[in-house]
Amino acid sequence: MQSDPDHNRSVVTIIGMPQAVVEAVFQGVVAAAELIDMDHHRGGHPRMGAADVIPFVPVRGVTMDDCVGLAHQLGQRMGTELGIPVYLYEEAATRPDRRNLANVRRGEYEGLKDEVATNPERAPDYGPAALGTAGASAIGARPPLIAFNVYLNSDDVGPAKAIAQAVRHSSGGLRYVKALGLLVEGQAQISMNLTDFRHTPIHRVLELIRIEAARYGLAVTHSEIVGLLPAEAMTDAARFYLQLADFSPDQILENRLSEEPPVRQSS
Amino acid sequence: MQSDPDHNRSVVTIIGMPQAVVEAVFQGVVAAAELIDMDHHRGGHPRMGAADVIPFVPVRGVTMDDCVGLAHQLGQRMGTELGIPVYLYEEAATRPDRRNLANVRRGEYEGLKDEVATNPERAPDYGPAALGTAGASAIGARPPLIAFNVYLNSDDVGPAKAIAQAVRHSSGGLRYVKALGLLVEGQAQISMNLTDFRHTPIHRVLELIRIEAARYGLAVTHSEIVGLLPAEAMTDAARFYLQLADFSPDQILENRLSEEPPVRQSS
Repeated sequence: MQSDPDHNRSVVTIIGMPQAVVEAVFQGVVAAAELIDMDHHRGGHPRMGAADVIPFVPVRGVTMDDCVGLAHQLGQRMGTELGIPVYLYEEAATRPDRRNLANVRRGEYEGLKDEVATNPERAPDYGPAALGTAGASAIGARPPLIAFNVYLNSDDVGPAKAIAQAVRHSSGGLRYVKALGLLVEGQAQISMNLTDFRHTPIHRVLELIRIEAARYGLAVTHSEIVGLLPAEAMTDAARFYLQLADFSPDQILENRLSEEPPVRQSS
Repeated sequence: MQSDPDHNRSVVTIIGMPQAVVEAVFQGVVAAAELIDMDHHRGGHPRMGAADVIPFVPVRGVTMDDCVGLAHQLGQRMGTELGIPVYLYEEAATRPDRRNLANVRRGEYEGLKDEVATNPERAPDYGPAALGTAGASAIGARPPLIAFNVYLNSDDVGPAKAIAQAVRHSSGGLRYVKALGLLVEGQAQISMNLTDFRHTPIHRVLELIRIEAARYGLAVTHSEIVGLLPAEAMTDAARFYLQLADFSPDQILENRLSEEPPVRQSS
């Protein structure tokens, strides 16, 4: 779990078998709905509910379609049993305009509360068209998101902002990159979310940053992954830089172990 | 399993729980001893027995010391139950001159058969000081070996041989690299065994090859891993090229799954 008092927001990651994860999330939503009164909630991060957003991410042995199914299952249960309006987003979206979470959360809790009963565009996928003190929830299915930060040998935020603008999707850059230029403890940083590492891999983002940084006479001092990432993202980077041809995940020893649990014999 | 008629030799890889692996290897040795008569065996690869060499390699949840213990356990059993002389090598060696497998196998089956009874230097660690038709076996413990080949944009074997000489341990190169320069389907290749990827990582070998190749105006077209390698070797390469600071294997999603098997609930 990561919490941030400025954002007044906690991020909880749960990994497990599908039905166990759904149950754990549901119980978490019950607790959040009891503890958080949205009429008295303030925070720097956009939000519309006590359990603001719940993305399902396939890790191993499940497909994106499975995750879409789990999003529907949880949404229906939250709507019926808890009376919380639920909006499905990204891969689970039922309408194209709801794929983007920012659209779903437009106006935040206060704005949605005013509109939900009267504007048919804002009718929830599950649950009542009315907000209680627990607000509403967005439930989605999406690829794993990688939080990737790159540091430059500079104490000037200007180039970091310009490079962030160059690499991010919203201003003409790579499709699955969100980026900001910041100063972190006095060092220029490009702070990013990679929202689909299979289509926009880490190495391509980093090498593009190197090229843009060189234009300012700057270089990358180091980078960091915040939180978790799939093994495949690291393997993909190794394959690229090592120029490995015809590499298969089956060539990784540990993957052989995972396929079939080793049999322990009694002798 | 990989077999090669020129070498007249098969390589079998077994992955599993320690005692299950020892049992499987023992049964394999029984079969090899029955089927292969070393008095009538010819082949391009140096060999001294029907089950010529058996390295134990730690993969997950076992230490090198554990593997040394397994080498002793198997050696004792092969000596006692099968009457096969066993020599412990590499991390399992009982004498410094037996760490190197080439020393253990000096003279091959025919040479060892002549010397084993009379030369105390060649007394086995387990089993009789006499060779039957199954010959002798070397049993060792060692880190996983990575077979790594690098191809150059050249049909001339000369630079490949010179680069192999530059990077391999035996002629002044990196400590845990064995290398040969070859032509493979007309393309120059540096064919390598990396015998300890933790101390001589893949990326360092590749980047040294790039530098040496540039001296001939050549470049790397691609590389390949033959067989298996540990996930850590790929992650290490990604960390190096991505300049990742403070990266922990705990940040890989799948490693969280492996630590504790997910609990399946009955609902």
